Amino acid sequence: MKYSYLGPEGTFTESAVRRLAPSARQTVPFPTVPAAVEAVRSGRFSRAVVPLENSVSGVVPPTLGELVAHAGQLRIDAQVTIGVTFALMAGEGTRLSDVRRVVSHPHALGQCRQWVERHLPHAATVVADSTAAAAVALADGGAATDAAIAAPETAARYGLTVLAHDIGTRRDAMTRFVSLRRSGADGPPTGQDRTALLITSDRSDPGVLTGVLGELSRRQVSIAWIQSWPRQTARGRYHFLVEVDRHIAHPGLAEAVEAMRKGVDSLTLLGSYPYIVDREVKGEKAAA
Amino acid sequence: MKYSYLGPEGTFTESAVRRLAPSARQTVPFPTVPAAVEAVRSGRFSRAVVPLENSVSGVVPPTLGELVAHAGQLRIDAQVTIGVTFALMAGEGTRLSDVRRVVSHPHALGQCRQWVERHLPHAATVVADSTAAAAVALADGGAATDAAIAAPETAARYGLTVLAHDIGTRRDAMTRFVSLRRSGADGPPTGQDRTALLITSDRSDPGVLTGVLGELSRRQVSIAWIQSWPRQTARGRYHFLVEVDRHIAHPGLAEAVEAMRKGVDSLTLLGSYPYIVDREVKGEKAAA
Repeated sequence: MKYSYLGPEGTFTESAVRRLAPSARQTVPFPTVPAAVEAVRSGRFSRAVVPLENSVSGVVPPTLGELVAHAGQLRIDAQVTIGVTFALMAGEGTRLSDVRRVVSHPHALGQCRQWVERHLPHAATVVADSTAAAAVALADGGAATDAAIAAPETAARYGLTVLAHDIGTRRDAMTRFVSLRRSGADGPPTGQDRTALLITSDRSDPGVLTGVLGELSRRQVSIAWIQSWPRQTARGRYHFLVEVDRHIAHPGLAEAVEAMRKGVDSLTLLGSYPYIVDREVKGEKAAA
Repeated sequence: MKYSYLGPEGTFTESAVRRLAPSARQTVPFPTVPAAVEAVRSGRFSRAVVPLENSVSGVVPPTLGELVAHAGQLRIDAQVTIGVTFALMAGEGTRLSDVRRVVSHPHALGQCRQWVERHLPHAATVVADSTAAAAVALADGGAATDAAIAAPETAARYGLTVLAHDIGTRRDAMTRFVSLRRSGADGPPTGQDRTALLITSDRSDPGVLTGVLGELSRRQVSIAWIQSWPRQTARGRYHFLVEVDRHIAHPGLAEAVEAMRKGVDSLTLLGSYPYIVDREVKGEKAAA
């Protein structure tokens, strides 16, 4: 299977691909979330792996945008949550006291802000497309920066030296990734599954949203996550992206979805998929 | 009143400040959302204006993060929605066919992606902290880029020439901004108001969320917007940010909030505020 993912190489997204498909040989980085998704929509790749949400910095809006824009043509076929740690890295010979400009992805800068403010109070921050792109920019010398924040593994890959490890504010930060494919049948339940729904309604009466969500709770199906997403064709109105803690093969959920359809203009299943949480995030020790 | 806002000057956020406080004299740009908010939290500024959501590219996660992190110490005191249009600009003498690298804020690049792919298929994109920072980088010549995407007004400010107007995919794109102050009493109802609530519950039974939301619909209060936000101290669990279409002075909403408090661990009022939609966004003609 060919995997596209949000690149470049050495980002946390590549780690997510490895977690989902340890033996995948064809894994190709793309510069943006829409480009990685397009590779799958066009049929050139079988799966796209992109970040959905980070526990510190929240959702990754471009991924939500792709899910909404291509609902019905894309299917979530897996999710994986992995732990993220950040390191400050620089070229050989650079000392912490030399650092004047730090480059990274905005999410990583946000997560390491407290450390940077304390240890590099006079440093300016510069944004890059990804943590790995920050390391590349630093290694290339193109961006006039002295240090980059990225995954610790990134340093070796780009010939950089780690000046400080684990500089994120939340040491238990994690990122949730989705694996996307073209539409088709969902895999069978695995025992730890979720289902994602996209709900759209033109009715403006107060009870619409609580009415449809009530169909879930009435059948003991928990809402794990919910996001409003602006509708492009209806100013000030929203789609609702809802994730529930069940596979669609669960009779209660299948029944709830049928009932929900009656109360809204449109309900699209975005997939039922295994919800994988990495061992380290769960706090378990790896087997010897 | 002193206003802090997400800078630099010439961004859409500055336009939002002008819309909220046309005669404000002291308006100071800050480099990040947390820095603009900190200026208000510390008491140095009276109001911070930061973007909350764009109709095309979705929420602005750092703003949600600040609202959640400082709930109880910050209050939303106004919201304003303004239309956004994008222009491609470059230094004098640059022609469209010369453009190889385009710099802008990720949201703006996302909104202009279709135009760029069609008209500049070989151009690389480079990210900047803001649309105005992109124009500054181009004007300074520091970033090795040929063109920037920003608000049309930005071109004149930085001595750039507009190569193409209105290049966003959605010509009716808009951004919603919040004005924040330190906690205190809400202003009186204006007739077009919203109230924002932050809900946290440790209960995991399926009915919690629908139960509390049902208190609103039962009293004819509409949910305008809802977002899950990851809890920092409880892995895999969420806060819920909810906006409703009423001022807290509305008896139905006040009653619903009291009922909701009983069903959750914590409910924080983030403010009741005028919900202002700019005339052009509403589709009205400006008065002559």
